[in-house]
Amino acid sequence: MVSKSQTKLITSLQQKKYRDQTGFFVAEGPKVIAELLNEGLLLHSFFSTAASQITAENHFQLNVAELKKISFLKTANTSLAVFKKPKPKPITDSGLIVVLDAVRDPGNLGTIIRLCDWFGVKQLICSEDTTDCFNPKVVQATMGSLARVQVHYLSLIEYFNQTKMPVYGGFMDGGNVYSEKLPTDGIIVMGNEANGISDAIIEKITHKITIPRFGETKKTESLNVATATAILLSEFRRFTEM
Amino acid sequence: MVSKSQTKLITSLQQKKYRDQTGFFVAEGPKVIAELLNEGLLLHSFFSTAASQITAENHFQLNVAELKKISFLKTANTSLAVFKKPKPKPITDSGLIVVLDAVRDPGNLGTIIRLCDWFGVKQLICSEDTTDCFNPKVVQATMGSLARVQVHYLSLIEYFNQTKMPVYGGFMDGGNVYSEKLPTDGIIVMGNEANGISDAIIEKITHKITIPRFGETKKTESLNVATATAILLSEFRRFTEM
Repeated sequence: MVSKSQTKLITSLQQKKYRDQTGFFVAEGPKVIAELLNEGLLLHSFFSTAASQITAENHFQLNVAELKKISFLKTANTSLAVFKKPKPKPITDSGLIVVLDAVRDPGNLGTIIRLCDWFGVKQLICSEDTTDCFNPKVVQATMGSLARVQVHYLSLIEYFNQTKMPVYGGFMDGGNVYSEKLPTDGIIVMGNEANGISDAIIEKITHKITIPRFGETKKTESLNVATATAILLSEFRRFTEM
Repeated sequence: MVSKSQTKLITSLQQKKYRDQTGFFVAEGPKVIAELLNEGLLLHSFFSTAASQITAENHFQLNVAELKKISFLKTANTSLAVFKKPKPKPITDSGLIVVLDAVRDPGNLGTIIRLCDWFGVKQLICSEDTTDCFNPKVVQATMGSLARVQVHYLSLIEYFNQTKMPVYGGFMDGGNVYSEKLPTDGIIVMGNEANGISDAIIEKITHKITIPRFGETKKTESLNVATATAILLSEFRRFTEM
């Protein structure tokens, strides 16, 4: 049985406004939930159609129809959890850092968070108009990676004004990323899906780089922001000692 | 004005069965349509809300409501075209070739076709259970790349039985892709989103490779098939003379 107030809370968490107000977000499916618990995230309440080994003060067993009612997914899973949003640690000027300037597509953000986790990038810094990482679609796409990568939302201009790290950004006329000497500590800026990096942020780029285009025609318009991030992170990391 | 038979044809082209039967597919939006025309694809019919410079025998001007009715998109664009599916050229044993084993998500296939185009891969070979590249979602995602990359659908087993090229596949226990010597001519196999490369195809892999995972915890489960393709193509190409 789900109470009216629980249903109201869960439904509201589809919207960023209420995730910000309450400090909670929703994750669905035993795999995602287990990953987030493993990473130490705090559980607020847990709803499952199966008798589960996860113990929580607010643990409710539901039937399939009840779970379907509160699920955000087209095809509801067997469980749904409300978690407390983790507070990111203070930003440090070290390691490889990815900065997103107005990335809007939840699928792209989810893929980039997984890439950061894969390549050992612990700090992901997002402009305030980048999609919220606790958006349900992002949560489902990132799995446990969301708990391992620190995601910060802030004014990029203020951030760039105080950092001393080199700032890399992808452009059509930059240095060839395959021949540039890339540092182990630095910032990689990725831009909006349609408009790229915004003018105010372009001024903060200290190193313009390019992923070369191959083939005879070279007509491909651009790479998707997530695949470009994959290629750049791979290049920054390939010379790192494992 | 759209006739009943035109509406019936266009609507049917959402399904692979009818695309196969008729040999036609649908593209929407002036940008995608112009790219496909530029690449020499044959236009069957063209519907637009604007007076257009594209000339075609079957060219119809519609109002917004009429176009909305035949559009596959949530938000209809200003034009829709029915094209003849191009016939791929015969497969040759040369260059870099990407093979997809049961890639199901249209978004992933679209991204991979764009990556092939970017990295000069002219031949993309798909198992018969890979998503159809003329699926409307794939067409919209790939833009003109679809006309520049030859996409073949066939039995992978038969294909591997006749090719003499080295066959690379991504595995958890393969050689480090950053230190392996990679050829300019070869095949890269990418597997299904959930199950990876199927057992029958694993037997055909001559070189197992791995994209190393970085960071302290190394818990990221896997890379998405499109981002893994991006990283592998970048590695195969980075030493190629541009």
